[in-house]
Formats: sequence, C-alpha cells, structure tokens
Amino acid sequence: MAGHVVDFEPIGRRGEISDGQSILEAARRLGVDLVNLCGGGGTCGRCKVQVLTGRVSDPTASELEHLAQTDLDKGWRLACQTRPLADCKVHVPPESLTAPQRTQVEGLEVEVEPDPVVVACSVELSAPCLSDLRADADRLLEALGDKQDSSCQRIDIEVLRALSPGLRSWGWKAMASVRDGEIVAVGPPEGRRLGLAVDLGTTKMAAYLVDLGNGTTVASRGAMNPQIAYGEDLIARLSRAMESPEEGARLQRLVVDGLNGMAAGLCEETEAHPEEIVETVIVGNTAMHHLLLRLAVDQLAMAPYVSAISVPHDVKARDIGLRLAPGAYVHLLPNIAGYVGSDHVAMMLATGLSEASRVTLALDIGTNTEVCLVSEGALCSVSCASGPAFEGAQIKHGMRAANGAIERVRLADGKVEYQTIGGAEPTGICGSGILDAVAQLYLSGLLNRGGRMDLQPGVRENGDQREFVLVPEEEGGERPAITITQKDVRQIQLAKGAIRTGIQVLLESKGLTEGDIEEVIIAGAFGTYIDVGNAIALGMLPSLPQDRFRQVGNAAGRGAVLALLSRAKRREAHAMARKVGYIELAGSPDFMNIFTQSMYLGPYREEEE
Amino acid sequence: MAGHVVDFEPIGRRGEISDGQSILEAARRLGVDLVNLCGGGGTCGRCKVQVLTGRVSDPTASELEHLAQTDLDKGWRLACQTRPLADCKVHVPPESLTAPQRTQVEGLEVEVEPDPVVVACSVELSAPCLSDLRADADRLLEALGDKQDSSCQRIDIEVLRALSPGLRSWGWKAMASVRDGEIVAVGPPEGRRLGLAVDLGTTKMAAYLVDLGNGTTVASRGAMNPQIAYGEDLIARLSRAMESPEEGARLQRLVVDGLNGMAAGLCEETEAHPEEIVETVIVGNTAMHHLLLRLAVDQLAMAPYVSAISVPHDVKARDIGLRLAPGAYVHLLPNIAGYVGSDHVAMMLATGLSEASRVTLALDIGTNTEVCLVSEGALCSVSCASGPAFEGAQIKHGMRAANGAIERVRLADGKVEYQTIGGAEPTGICGSGILDAVAQLYLSGLLNRGGRMDLQPGVRENGDQREFVLVPEEEGGERPAITITQKDVRQIQLAKGAIRTGIQVLLESKGLTEGDIEEVIIAGAFGTYIDVGNAIALGMLPSLPQDRFRQVGNAAGRGAVLALLSRAKRREAHAMARKVGYIELAGSPDFMNIFTQSMYLGPYREEEE
Repeated sequence: MAGHVVDFEPIGRRGEISDGQSILEAARRLGVDLVNLCGGGGTCGRCKVQVLTGRVSDPTASELEHLAQTDLDKGWRLACQTRPLADCKVHVPPESLTAPQRTQVEGLEVEVEPDPVVVACSVELSAPCLSDLRADADRLLEALGDKQDSSCQRIDIEVLRALSPGLRSWGWKAMASVRDGEIVAVGPPEGRRLGLAVDLGTTKMAAYLVDLGNGTTVASRGAMNPQIAYGEDLIARLSRAMESPEEGARLQRLVVDGLNGMAAGLCEETEAHPEEIVETVIVGNTAMHHLLLRLAVDQLAMAPYVSAISVPHDVKARDIGLRLAPGAYVHLLPNIAGYVGSDHVAMMLATGLSEASRVTLALDIGTNTEVCLVSEGALCSVSCASGPAFEGAQIKHGMRAANGAIERVRLADGKVEYQTIGGAEPTGICGSGILDAVAQLYLSGLLNRGGRMDLQPGVRENGDQREFVLVPEEEGGERPAITITQKDVRQIQLAKGAIRTGIQVLLESKGLTEGDIEEVIIAGAFGTYIDVGNAIALGMLPSLPQDRFRQVGNAAGRGAVLALLSRAKRREAHAMARKVGYIELAGSPDFMNIFTQSMYLGPYREEEE
Repeated sequence: MAGHVVDFEPIGRRGEISDGQSILEAARRLGVDLVNLCGGGGTCGRCKVQVLTGRVSDPTASELEHLAQTDLDKGWRLACQTRPLADCKVHVPPESLTAPQRTQVEGLEVEVEPDPVVVACSVELSAPCLSDLRADADRLLEALGDKQDSSCQRIDIEVLRALSPGLRSWGWKAMASVRDGEIVAVGPPEGRRLGLAVDLGTTKMAAYLVDLGNGTTVASRGAMNPQIAYGEDLIARLSRAMESPEEGARLQRLVVDGLNGMAAGLCEETEAHPEEIVETVIVGNTAMHHLLLRLAVDQLAMAPYVSAISVPHDVKARDIGLRLAPGAYVHLLPNIAGYVGSDHVAMMLATGLSEASRVTLALDIGTNTEVCLVSEGALCSVSCASGPAFEGAQIKHGMRAANGAIERVRLADGKVEYQTIGGAEPTGICGSGILDAVAQLYLSGLLNRGGRMDLQPGVRENGDQREFVLVPEEEGGERPAITITQKDVRQIQLAKGAIRTGIQVLLESKGLTEGDIEEVIIAGAFGTYIDVGNAIALGMLPSLPQDRFRQVGNAAGRGAVLALLSRAKRREAHAMARKVGYIELAGSPDFMNIFTQSMYLGPYREEEE
C-alpha cells in the first residue's frame, strides 16, 4: 500500500510513512521529538498537534476525551491516535516538543512587515581619476545621497578604516548599510544584511539570526548564561559586580564572550559572517541589561532599586565588546523598573498585550518571573523572585533540560510514569518534571497542603528528611535513586509562592479575583513547557478552565525579533513601557500575608486555618 | 625719580621699571624674550613692538631708519630705542619674540562669539523614592528636556556607566555637557567645560586648552610629533604605515600618546582634569589626519593620491585612544585634497581668506607647505614638499628652535652677527637662522645665483665640500665650529624652490605675476619667525614691499580654536573647503621648468641664462 508524505511545521521536517502509521510514529522516524508520557496509548494527552492540510483518521475515544470539540474542529489531534490517510501538513506547537527542540522553534513565527532601522543601499561608484579626486567616503556619501531621501552624512570610524581597500577590492561596487543617516557597514554588493535578536536570561540565553531583508529567522540557538558560574540568581550576580569594577568587567566579559560565541555559531550554521550582522536587539531583565553594559548596579541592588537607565537606547556593539559589523549598534528596549526589564516589554510586544481588550494575565516565568495584568486598557506589572528551582538548581536531583532529564511525571494509582528528554536513561529531573512531581504528590495525598510529606508507600526516610522515590536505585547500585525530597518540595513552594504572590497583588490592586481573568498568557521556555493542569493544582496558576491559558514559548525572544525588524514595533515598545504601571511587591502593604498564603499547595485561599 | 609700569601684551607680563630705561630693558627684567641681534644698538631693527597706550620717548634716528612713518603712526617702535615716560601698555608681535615664547602667544588672539557645539546645562534633580522610581538617566534626560529647546535623548555609554554613583555623590546636582542631543559628559555642578584644539603637524604639534564658556585659551603648549622617530617626512611615515596594520597602529599610538600627554600637561598647568575636556578639534595635513585615525593610506600614497575622507566628521575620542571626557568627540575639519589638509582649511579660516577682496597669497610653511591664492573671490591651493630643512633637519649643524640655537644671522661688512635662543652659548642653528645665513651669504656675494659657494674669507674647504664658518671652534677645541656647508645651501635651495614653485604655478594658473599680489599672509610657527627680507632676497617669497606681508603665527591652531568655539566657523570651514580649487603640482604642465627656475637664489626669473 502506498505511503503518505507528512510535513512537520514549523520545524521543517518532511518524509514518507507507510499507510496505517500514526503521526507520532512519523514524528519518531523524522526525528521530531514529540512529548508522550504514556508511550502512545492515548492516555496522557500530551502529543497534541494540529493537522493543517490533508485527510486523517477519525478521532478516537481517547481523543474525544482529551480534546474539546472546538479544538477538534480546528484540526487539533493527538499524534499517537491519528493516522494520515493522505499527504498532510502538521503544525507542532512548542509545548508538544521535548525541551531540546524547543529553541529551534521559538521565535520563528513573527508576523511583521520588515522595516528595519538599518537600510541597505547598493551603489556603483566611479573610480577616482585626475579629473575626479573626491575622497572615497565623500564619493560614497554623495552616491547614497543621490539614492536616498534621508541625508546620509556620517560614516562610522571602523567602517571608514576599511573603506578604501574595500571599495578597490570590490571594483567600486558596494552595499552600504545605513542607520539613521550613518553608514554602519559597507560590504561587497552581494553581501547579506543580518540582524541578531537576543533574549538574555539570568540562566539561559537565546539568540536568533534574522535576515533583515525578508524578515525570516534563518537560525536560532540557546546557551547557558556563562555568568552562572558567579551565582545562579540576580542578587548573587549583582553582589559580585558590586565588589569591584574588575568583577563587573569580568561578568560583562563572560556574557559578551557567550554572545559572540552564539553569533559565531549561528553564522557558521548559515555560512554567514558576524560582520554581516548590522543590527542587534538584546532584551533581558534589568540586572542582566546592566551587567551586559557594565553599568553601575549598586543603586539597582539597594532600595529603592533604581535602574541607571530605562529609556530605550543604542550602544555601539564594539563599546560592549560584541564583534559584529564594524559600526553595528545594539538597541536596548526600554526597562520598566529595577526588576522588570526589557524582556518583559518584549514579551508584551510579542503577545500584543497593549491591545488586549479582555482581562489578561501574562507571565514570563524564569529565575525572575514578571507578571503583567491588563484590565480596562491599563497595564500593571510586578516582578517575583521565583529563583532558579525551575531551572533544576537547588533541587537534590535537579538538572537542566538536557538528555536524560525527567521532564514529565504522572502518578497513576500509586504507579510512577515518567518521560525523559530524548528517551534516554533517567539521570535527573528538570523543572517541568519537578513541578509535575510535586503537583502529583499533592494530588495523590502524599503531600499535605502545607507541603509536608507523608510516610506512605513510595516515601522513605533518608538521613534527616523524607523523600519520594521517582526512580529506584539500579540493581547493583550503579545509578543512585532519583527522588523528590522534602527540601525540594519547600523550594518549589517558595518558587510558586513568589509567582502566586505577584498574581494576587496585581489582582487585589485592581479589586479583581482570579475568576475575573479571561486569558492567561504563559511565556518563557519553562512556562511553555509546564503542565498547566499541574501548575493549577499546585496553586501556582489561578484555577481557571484550561482553555483560558495560552503558552506562547519564548515571547521575549520573539519580541526582540520584532524590534529588530520593525521601527514601528520599537516605537510601540517604548510607548508601552511608559504606559505600564509598576508595583514594587515588597512595598505592597499586604505582601507578607499574601506570600504566606501563596506558599500553601492547592488553590489560593484568602486565609488558611 | 619715580618709575613706570609697563604691561606686555598678549603675554600678560607687567612690572615697574626705572625712569630712563628702555622697553627692551623692561622686557629683559620681566622675562619677555625680545629678539635683538645688535644687542640694543638700534641697528638690527628686530625688536619691534607696538605701544598701545602711554607716553614714550620720541623716535630716534635709528627708528626713523627702520620704521615707515605709517608704522610709527600706529605706535610701532624699536624696543631698544624707546623709553617709557609714563605707565604704558605694549603689544609684542610673535615675530619679535624668541622661539621658546612663541607657542605661549600663538592662538591666543581669537575673536569669535563662543557658540560651541557642546552646551553646558546645570540641573538639580530630586532623589528617587518609592513614589518616584524613575531611572537615573531618565530623570536627567527629562530635566534637560525641561531646560532645553533641543531634545536631548541620548547618553553616551561611558557617561551612563559613571552616572549613578556620580549623581549620588554630587547630591543630585550636576552639570551635563550636551552635544547635538547627546550627553557627552556629566560632572559636578561646579565643573568646567573645556575644549582642546590641536594643530597636528608632521614635525610639531601645538595644543590649546580653551574654556568653552568664555572662549579664552587658558593654556597652550607645543611638542614634537613623536612619529618623527619613524621618518621626518610624510612619505616616510606613510610608507611605514603601509608595511602592515600593526605599523599603522604603532604610528597612531605614538601620536595619540603624545596628544594625551599634552592634554594632561595642559590640565595640570591649569588645575583641570582631562575629563573636563568635552570637545576636541584636530587639524593637520591629510596624511597626519589619516595616521591619527588609523585610516588606510595606500590610496593616499599612490597616484592619484585620494583621501579616505575629506568631509568634516566626528569621531569619539575614545575610538582613537584619546582620554578626555567619557563621551567627548573629536571634530575633524574637512580636508581639501590628498596633500592639502584640514590645517590649511583652519589657516584659511583664521585668516578670513574666504572673504579676502584683494589678490592674496597665503602660505603655511612647514615640512609640507600649503599655498593658497585668492583672486576675484576664487580660492586655489597647492601643496609643496618643502621638506624638513627649515626644522633644522638634514642640515649639518641644524637643530630645532631650542636654547642655544642660532636663530638670527647678519653679515655686516664681512662680520658675522648672530643671536641665539635664550642668549645661550651657540650649539647649532635652527631654521630661521639657516634661512638668514644663506640669504646673507648670497647678498654678500659668497654664494652665486646657482648656490655655489665662493672661496672668499670665512669660507673654507672641509673634506669634500666648502663651508662658511658662522661660529669658529672654541679655543682648545672643546666646541666644534658651527658652519653652513655647500650641502646645507643645496637643501635650502630645494626647500625654498618647492615653495616658490607652488607660488608660481598658482600665479600662472590665474595669469597673474608676483607684482599683482596685494597681500601675502605667512602662517605657521616657522613662517612667523622668518626674516621676510631675507626670504625675499633668497627668492622664496615674491619681491614685494614688506608692508604687503603679514606674519600671523600658528593660524592653523587658531583656526582649530575657532572651530572649537563656534558652530558658525565650522560651517564656514566646510563651505570654504568645498569652494577651494586644488592644483596637483606634479600634474602642472610647466612644473619641471618652474621648479628648476625656482631653485636659483635671488628673485624668480622666467628663464635663467
């Protein structure tokens, strides 16, 4: 029997499968790592995909159970249950992919008319001769003046340094990249005009290489923030930078080296050269922003926590050590406050938050979690010190989302089901797995509302604390057990409590309750990958129907790409940042009370007995 | 008998003398080093000063001989002949001062309404508090926005780096220096706003520290261009820079280190700090300009000798290694051609050449000499490779204008009269002394028109050539004789021939002869200090009445100061540079013939027998 071609978007993998095989099987064959906890039995409901074109088998009972009719109508299916009956095109949302493939996707889907701040202009010049002794730069500027409306009058000194030999080697044909009247790069006429968008997180960095001509993201990659060696959270980094200017310079060099490495890697992957990157947008929380630029941070680390700068601004890439086009700029989107940075603004930009007409809550979950509430056209934000527990830090068997990390956990009738990244032997547990585990322990009654672990089957005493055994020791003792300890539970309580406190303070500031929230947008790599049901069960997220939640991936990175591609989006980001209200959590009168309540597991209650 | 107070301007020395003492004696007492060859006998006529106020003795016979009645009417006198009869104020022109005092004076007399590109703005800010969490830079920018018409929206990254601790240490009062909407410096409210103007010559550098607030030059100094170790002329330097980028970088570092040293010295002298220098203007010939900025020079060193850039432009001081205010710019005035640089434009600016209504010839004599002819409103320039002979280089007993250098020479009835700088024991002979000596030898008939030395008394054979003994060996032979050799004469012939060639080519291009020239402006430290009569006798300068000559000192430096102080002057320089015609000497059809004729001593003739 003939096979069918299945096309997975936006990953861009495509191949033939035999008739009768499921989409999940097709995905496995083509190396598309779909989440599935139950091994394809249709019970976990995690392998959701959207069939865009092509005929497929009818929904199974399992699919009817896991998917609303409205979703089925839109083509949403479980990959393990659905068999193509013809060639078809399938959309894979980020949350259905395992962690390692996530950064490949995130940030790709940007819809904006490219209108970048750097304009390319091809020129063909006449060579100098005795009757035309104009200087090289004058010649170029005049040619650009003839072509453009805007008066181009300046040339970056580094561009100027390379101009004369360049023009001669290219036979007096060249492409100039012009930014607000300044030539920031000159290259051969066939050169590319690339941009780099970076989401600089406390823990992770994501970088996107963008073709400024057509707006496509040609490559993307993620990496750890190398500053992590100097402390996992913001406060540790700021303290380090405050020790001496040399320490501040060291922290800066670390992150800049990391960014240069990512840029070089992205370029290698696409046969480009970092010199072709003519513009960069970097977003990050305010502390990362300051450390990147080597600004003073004392005033940021101490009350009342004031940024050195919040307005959007431009810095020559070389002035912070980035090796890109000779005259390239880095554009920094505006910050909102000392602990609400430009990554939050970028997220708001990417999610169109300033135009939300409904009561909308948007969270960007990370080592620092920013939360924004939109109601009646007003935007208000808080920042929550959620800590690095969701990155696997400060968790006994915690690890980053790498091969072998347990990323999904389910407790069914006392039996542990889990899935590791890459299907490898389990070596530890990453953030989403920890969140799942704690929620499932609570739902199974192994944890009480206060987070105390009960000595039921599966739980054991180990030294001074209890722990739940997720994966027992290997026979022969070659691999130790992977467990969730009582202390791990406390860390998760602190983290989720911090986030929930932010949500509550925002709601109370507007006189709203969680039921009033019409939409919840969850951004960030981690936020995209969490099980919303488990997060609700923990009380981290409001108890709302799941269809009010939207997991949008690395929206901050996508916002950075938007600002890279569009002047209008930059203006929008600026206007939005000025408009957003900011509540300093610790300054909120009810803060301690709300925080205490937020740490309980289960739905948030005004007052605990 | 009561004394009188004499005030020497513009040096600013002032003191009492006894009745009956001459102005020369007063000058000696007050440390004002006036030129005098004859020791005060009224015979050399070099100690010219202008009595501005106060009654003085009547002119002596000697003064009536040396000074025209029109000059006497304007107060011009010989200092050795004139006795104050009351308190008086005396103007000392640069040419009457010995070399070491010249740079103190040059460039001081600038008349322009200060309107610098950098504007100072004092602000008093409120400190951040919980109800006003604006970022530090935002706070400053808003305060500046309230005060200024122009929108100040940018802040230099280096300024930003120091802003937060600065504002706190100054109690939220500060002075911001704003340039075209960008904050280039922020300091305490009582800070100064200084500018630096530099004339960067192939051999010498002159720097002027200027108070941008009131337009006064608060200090100035000169130094050798440290690149001289890499070759005395342009071609040698360019060749060196073309060897490799590292050599180019080395040459740049040398000159920048020299400039940083001068800036630091000027600041120390005036209790200022280089961080208070918020703007710099540097002028120089095109090669020095390129080497300073580390631009490619291959195209400048090879036909058709094209600059990398000619339009005026701005560079961050730090981008070329200058240590000034954190965000300070260097403004580079426009070049005219590969070998007519911004120093020439600055000279034209300082001498108001673009407004000259008469046929005017302007020369800036140096290692490279630029000559500009103005006739009927049109300006036309040439560049002459006059070489370093006038700097004392390539001359057997040549030396720079330092203590002990013979700077004036007269042959009277076969007797040698000379004067050394500082009145010290003679140790060599500097440019003006060499020019005097060759002219006097020619006028005395010891040199024929072709420059050949005749074996008359005073001339001796020494090895393979003849030489004229200026100062005989000391008895006992401790100090060798100081002589002018036949080869020295040849060097001077080449140098003056190059300059005269430039003048002739310009005149012929306009169909003029030397008699048509109504004014000759001689700029440059050396040009100011030469004896015009001797220069005419040599045939270096046109044979015109001496009252058509004006020696204006370091006009290039003064032009740089003007451009530092005034936006209008920058615009004028730009307009002028676009307007000037340029003749490439070597491309002139009659070049070789004119050059051959120009090398003869004595008045220029169309054709030598």
